[in-house]
Amino acid sequence: MKYAIGIDIGGTITKIGLVSEQGKCLEKTSFRTKEFKNFSKYITQLEKAINSLTKNKTIVGIGMGAPNASKNGTIETPANLKWSGKLNLVDKLREKFTCPIFLSNDANCAAVGEMMYGNAKKLKDFIVITLGTGLGSGIVTNGMLVEGYDGFAAELGHFSINNKSRYTGLGVRGGLEAYVSATGIKRTIMYMLSKYMDESVFRGIAFNDLHGEDITEAAENNDKIAIKSYEYTGKILGEALANFVSFSQPEAIILTGGLAHSGKWILKPTKNSFEKKLLPFYKGKVKILLSGLEDKDSAILGSAALVWKNLS
Amino acid sequence: MKYAIGIDIGGTITKIGLVSEQGKCLEKTSFRTKEFKNFSKYITQLEKAINSLTKNKTIVGIGMGAPNASKNGTIETPANLKWSGKLNLVDKLREKFTCPIFLSNDANCAAVGEMMYGNAKKLKDFIVITLGTGLGSGIVTNGMLVEGYDGFAAELGHFSINNKSRYTGLGVRGGLEAYVSATGIKRTIMYMLSKYMDESVFRGIAFNDLHGEDITEAAENNDKIAIKSYEYTGKILGEALANFVSFSQPEAIILTGGLAHSGKWILKPTKNSFEKKLLPFYKGKVKILLSGLEDKDSAILGSAALVWKNLS
Repeated sequence: MKYAIGIDIGGTITKIGLVSEQGKCLEKTSFRTKEFKNFSKYITQLEKAINSLTKNKTIVGIGMGAPNASKNGTIETPANLKWSGKLNLVDKLREKFTCPIFLSNDANCAAVGEMMYGNAKKLKDFIVITLGTGLGSGIVTNGMLVEGYDGFAAELGHFSINNKSRYTGLGVRGGLEAYVSATGIKRTIMYMLSKYMDESVFRGIAFNDLHGEDITEAAENNDKIAIKSYEYTGKILGEALANFVSFSQPEAIILTGGLAHSGKWILKPTKNSFEKKLLPFYKGKVKILLSGLEDKDSAILGSAALVWKNLS
Repeated sequence: MKYAIGIDIGGTITKIGLVSEQGKCLEKTSFRTKEFKNFSKYITQLEKAINSLTKNKTIVGIGMGAPNASKNGTIETPANLKWSGKLNLVDKLREKFTCPIFLSNDANCAAVGEMMYGNAKKLKDFIVITLGTGLGSGIVTNGMLVEGYDGFAAELGHFSINNKSRYTGLGVRGGLEAYVSATGIKRTIMYMLSKYMDESVFRGIAFNDLHGEDITEAAENNDKIAIKSYEYTGKILGEALANFVSFSQPEAIILTGGLAHSGKWILKPTKNSFEKKLLPFYKGKVKILLSGLEDKDSAILGSAALVWKNLS
C-alpha cells in the first residue's frame, strides 16, 4: 500500500496525516504552530511529527498547504504566521527527507482535495473558502486551479468589503477575513459584547481563551451573543460570495475549516444573505456546500492530494 | 483572401466590420441599436448592414459580441438593450446566412481579440474591462476564457462596490457600472453639477445630448467638472480593479471601449487609486493598459477573432 504525508500549516495548529491513495487519513498528529517563534525549531518539530507517522512505511511524497505559499517552495510574508520574510520551507525539509515534496497555498490544497475526494468531484467551476485563523480560497475554473501570474491568485481573505471598521493582520482595512474566519467571529463576539447587554457565557471568557467550538456550543444553548455573531458573520460572507459569483460563476462554493464546523450556524445566515444579493441570472444556479471531506481532516487530505495529483 | 464579419452589439450602437485573418478591419458600418425597439426589425437592419460589406467576397464566418450572451446563441435579459426576454440571435441570423455564426459576451470577444491581435498576445492571465454603455469584462486564467457554469462569468459591471448611492440598469444598488462606464461618467457629470458651482460647459448640455468625447474635450479645456468627473470615476475603478486582483492575479488589466478612449484622463486616476489599494505582494506586478487593438475597432476585431479562433 502507498502512502502520502499531508501537512496543513495553519496559523494556530499544524496538522500532519498519513493518507492513503484513496483519500483516507489513517493516522494523524498535530502541534501548535504558534509555539514556535523560531522557524528552525518549527522545522525540527515538523520532522519529528512526520517520522512518528512513517515508521516502517513507504512514503511516496509529502504535500504541504500553507498560507502565502509561492510557486517555488517558499512562504512569503504570511499574515497569520509568526515568522516573517521569505521562508524556504521546501528546501529545509529536503535536507531531512528524500521523497518528493510539494507546497501550495493551503486553500489551493483544499480545492484539489475537494476535486479528488470531496464535493467537487464532477465540477469544473467551483470555489473553496477555508475559514481558519484567516480566510483562504481556492478557485477552480475550466477544471484548473486559478494560480495567477506568480501564484498569489485567490487571496480573497484580503478582499475589501463595504464594512470598513476592522483591519486584517496585513493591515487591510475592511478585509473580508477580519470578519469571516475563526478569528473574525471571535472579534465579532467582542463587538457584540460591546454593542448589546445580553447575558452571555462570553462575558466570562477572555479573547485568547475563546475557541470556535465554544461559540457553536453557546449558540446551541441559545446564547444571544453567539447567535447574533453567527448571523453577522454569515451576512457578510453571503454578500461577499455573491460578489465572487460575478467573477467566475462557480457551480458551487464549498466552505471548510474551523468556522465551517459550526454547520448550520454559519451556513443558514450565509445562504440567506447570498440568495438575497445574487443577480437574477445566477439565482438557483450556485450551491453553497460544506466540505465533502472527512470531518476535520479536509486540510490534511487536500495537502496529500497535491502529492497524488503531481505524481499522477 | 479570407474575411470574417465582426459585429459588436452595443447598447447604443451596433458596429459591423469586414476583418482580415491578420486582424485588419478593412471596411465598416454602424447604426444606432436604440432605434430598433422591435427585435425583428433590428435583425433586418443587421442583415442589410452585413450585405453592404460582403458583396463579391467570401465570408468564412460571422462573429458577434453582445451583452448577456449565453453559451447557446441567445441573449438573455440584457440590462443595456431595449429588448427583453430570451432573444434567439444566432437562430434568426442563420435564416439569412449559411456561413458559421458565433456569439459570445461582448467583453469575452474583446478578451479574445486582445489575445489574438492586441496587448495580451503573450499573457495567460489577464482581464479586459470594456467601458461602453455598461461595464463588461472578459477574464482569462491559465490561457483560457473564464465562462463559468453556464456562460455568465465575468459580469463585473454588476460587481457591488462600497458606494451605494446609484442603481444599475438591472437595479443593482452600488453596481460598478453605475459609476464606471460611458453612462456612469455622464451620471457623474450630473452629480458634479449638483455638488459644485464651478462654471462648466456641461451646464448647457442635457444628459441625453452628452457624449464621451465632449467630456474629454472639456477636460482638455480645463473644465473643472470634467476633470473632477474623471478623477471620481478613476478612483472607483482603481479600487475595484485592486479587489479583482485578489481573485485571479492577472498580469495585466486592459481597458477598452468609449470611456477608455479618453486615454490619460481615465488612466491616470485609475492607476493612482489602484496602486494605493493593491496588496503588498501584488505591488509592481500588475499592469494597467489601454487596448492594443486599432482605435475604436477593438470590439469589431474581438468579435471577428471569435470566428478565427473557433474555426482554427
